[in-house]
Amino acid sequence: MDIVRVMDDLVCTRRVPGLGSASLRVVRSAQGVVSVATDPVGAPVGRWVFATTGSAARLAMPDPTCMTDLTICGIIDQWDEEVPPVATAHRATDTGSGASKG
Amino acid sequence: MDIVRVMDDLVCTRRVPGLGSASLRVVRSAQGVVSVATDPVGAPVGRWVFATTGSAARLAMPDPTCMTDLTICGIIDQWDEEVPPVATAHRATDTGSGASKG
Amino acid sequence: MDIVRVMDDLVCTRRVPGLGSASLRVVRSAQGVVSVATDPVGAPVGRWVFATTGSAARLAMPDPTCMTDLTICGIIDQWDEEVPPVATAHRATDTGSGASKG
Amino acid sequence: MDIVRVMDDLVCTRRVPGLGSASLRVVRSAQGVVSVATDPVGAPVGRWVFATTGSAARLAMPDPTCMTDLTICGIIDQWDEEVPPVATAHRATDTGSGASKG
Amino acid sequence: MDIVRVMDDLVCTRRVPGLGSASLRVVRSAQGVVSVATDPVGAPVGRWVFATTGSAARLAMPDPTCMTDLTICGIIDQWDEEVPPVATAHRATDTGSGASKG
Repeated sequence: MDIVRVMDDLVCTRRVPGLGSASLRVVRSAQGVVSVATDPVGAPVGRWVFATTGSAARLAMPDPTCMTDLTICGIIDQWDEEVPPVATAHRATDTGSGASKG
Repeated sequence: MDIVRVMDDLVCTRRVPGLGSASLRVVRSAQGVVSVATDPVGAPVGRWVFATTGSAARLAMPDPTCMTDLTICGIIDQWDEEVPPVATAHRATDTGSGASKG
Repeated sequence: MDIVRVMDDLVCTRRVPGLGSASLRVVRSAQGVVSVATDPVGAPVGRWVFATTGSAARLAMPDPTCMTDLTICGIIDQWDEEVPPVATAHRATDTGSGASKG
Repeated sequence: MDIVRVMDDLVCTRRVPGLGSASLRVVRSAQGVVSVATDPVGAPVGRWVFATTGSAARLAMPDPTCMTDLTICGIIDQWDEEVPPVATAHRATDTGSGASKG
Repeated sequence: MDIVRVMDDLVCTRRVPGLGSASLRVVRSAQGVVSVATDPVGAPVGRWVFATTGSAARLAMPDPTCMTDLTICGIIDQWDEEVPPVATAHRATDTGSGASKG
């Protein structure tokens, strides 16, 4: 699932009926790709969220016939784009041969 | 869902029956990738639209058996490729710990 | 749907039964990515075509159980890789506020 | 299926019901793309795993209605990001015409 | 469908039951992206193969409930990564207006 930031609301007066009254949000990924997601969670603009794609995006909506392909699933409690996560908890010598390929 | 610009109509005399009489549009993303979308909305050339992908693209068509994988779903009221959306509405100190990862 | 050029036939003596007798074509995108498509249309080598992906690719085949994920759907009448389509037909002042974001 | 490294747990107090109690992991690909996966395997942070995407991601979960699009499927016994796998076992002169295109 | 090279077997002692006894192969694309595929064909390491993705990947397996998203479908008789296919067979003046856009 994608980690994206909610940038704005998307205003579309002319749209297909298959979207119903779903709210549309402009979201941006860490790589700068801007796209549109449906938002059953109601995330404030500026917050980092994670969103599911493909057929799962429809299942994440209250109305599973909504023809979205990207749906916001949750608001991340803490996320800092500048500080990528670092896997500190595990050293290569942990159980099993660890992450080194002979 | 992708934000793309309608560039032209695509003319294809020889095409599979599974497309029916769907109108085919040449669309371009902000990253410059050119692709083909079906267009139940009738967006004028030059306008920015958003389009849904995957199995949702079929659901967005009047005939859900149309074997498209990219369907235009709405005409964006205002979009300027040069002015990327900026998440001004939310400051990191908003409800919850905001978007900073310890 | 992707715009690709038919480069060659793909010869595979050992292949899974799920492909039946589908003809396999080597295709290349404008970005240079080479992949394999099934071809119910019979496009000549060298021609530009558009192809559908995902579950729609199976629906575009005469036998919808054919386990392809990329199927050629039509031969584009005219396409020039060097001359990207330009959206001339629409000026920003057309109906509605046009493609500029305040 | 994608090869990714488990970087951290993702903490999301507000999330859609469709995720149930699935544990969410922050994972990173060799290309540096950070995303979120559900984790029925319980992989320790730091380990390299492989994850399945799309509708298969739901099938890999104990509850196949969980609307994930990326699910961890196994912990790789040995993997070293710095040492890409090299296909040494096969020389071009092996059975069949081998990997050279006339 | 993707053209990839079989680099190695993937060894995973801990993996989800949904994979059954499917053999897992490490494969690499021409762009250098390394991923994991299931292999009902039994391709020797080093050979170039083509693989199908998405829901088609499950259909290509003997057990269509196997939750793979990339399945090897055939061993390419001849493929040379250094010599990209060239569409020589067709000149722009062939039947129809050929591949030039006015």
